[in-house]
Amino acid sequence: MARVMFDLCGAGDERFSPYCWRSRMALAHKGLDVETRATPFTGIGQMTGGFSRTVPVLEDHGARISDSFAIALHLEETYPEAPSLFGGAGGRALSRFVESWANSLHGPILKAVILDIHDRLAPDDRAYFRDSREKRFGTTLEALQADRETHREAFRASLLPMRLMLKAQPFIGGEAPLFADYILFGTLQWPRMVSDFPMLAEGDAVAAWFERCLDLHDGLGRMALRR
Amino acid sequence: MARVMFDLCGAGDERFSPYCWRSRMALAHKGLDVETRATPFTGIGQMTGGFSRTVPVLEDHGARISDSFAIALHLEETYPEAPSLFGGAGGRALSRFVESWANSLHGPILKAVILDIHDRLAPDDRAYFRDSREKRFGTTLEALQADRETHREAFRASLLPMRLMLKAQPFIGGEAPLFADYILFGTLQWPRMVSDFPMLAEGDAVAAWFERCLDLHDGLGRMALRR
Repeated sequence: MARVMFDLCGAGDERFSPYCWRSRMALAHKGLDVETRATPFTGIGQMTGGFSRTVPVLEDHGARISDSFAIALHLEETYPEAPSLFGGAGGRALSRFVESWANSLHGPILKAVILDIHDRLAPDDRAYFRDSREKRFGTTLEALQADRETHREAFRASLLPMRLMLKAQPFIGGEAPLFADYILFGTLQWPRMVSDFPMLAEGDAVAAWFERCLDLHDGLGRMALRR
Repeated sequence: MARVMFDLCGAGDERFSPYCWRSRMALAHKGLDVETRATPFTGIGQMTGGFSRTVPVLEDHGARISDSFAIALHLEETYPEAPSLFGGAGGRALSRFVESWANSLHGPILKAVILDIHDRLAPDDRAYFRDSREKRFGTTLEALQADRETHREAFRASLLPMRLMLKAQPFIGGEAPLFADYILFGTLQWPRMVSDFPMLAEGDAVAAWFERCLDLHDGLGRMALRR
């Protein structure tokens, strides 16, 4: 296989990284086959030969790219005949804003499901994850997740811009999805893959948009293995 | 003059509407002359011959358009040779997201400067503004603005996506501004035009971006009359 993506994995091979999902969807949007290689947190450095400390990493016919936005740029440049991920230079620039906005949701999401993430990991990854995240937040994973209702409330309030936009059009990309949609999709697929705690409220227009995204590309996001 | 824009005004002819500023900047971006017609809240219906209850309204060689986004779409379609406001179809679609995000900031901004807005208005507009806004919020303008520090704090926290994005590029449009920048510019020019209460913190990267926007188009935003 000429195209390989290193993809974060749980102990049961769950693929849950928001950034990896952005790249998976971008590859599917371009109609490109890829072998995804299950990569634990503590295996990234070794598996990528020291190239990157984070995933996704894409190997594509000799090119090697880390960072989901850089991967999207690479795909857009390398496969210009396939459906565009950005819809032009303006869409490419504005996707950076959508990325920044979506990433600003990661704090409350992480805190709401942080113990669930931990519980999905293999033993070595669990130790690494607990240690690094408890240091970052200055408290235990258990204490963080105990306040999950509060974190979810903050998260849901932050979705207001999407709710307003969805009155005007069904996707961030307009009538059809672009990479900007996959950015937010990855953000929301992340808790969905590791937790039964529903981050989106039933009846929220954002939940309906997310369902539409789960259907894309032959249900790529929906069919993914959850345990 | 073949091109007229009805533009919200204060008693001293201050132009402060966030939506009107979006259109002013869009017209300047396209290099188009326009006569802006000072329009008080209570004069919109009569001055536009019942066409619209809100401004901006643009009259452009027989076409008549209300709503700042619709005006940008009109300008992009009518003047394709002039610099693009969207940078392609993707940028056009994603600008809707930026609009929704920027509009979600309007609540905290309005509450932080609502009495200052009131005080800039002509007598008839003051009565209309106080009555409609106090009904909407269920409290007095004075009570809302008394909590302005809290509203400003919420507003500043909401700017995090811009702060993150500005690490990657100087404008939402990338290396140069697009309509998406004017959307947020209008949002921030609104309190600047009516109040001495500084909404942006000194040293915030968003403040530096705003200063860059004030310099655009021969300082159109910076030169505007404030009292």
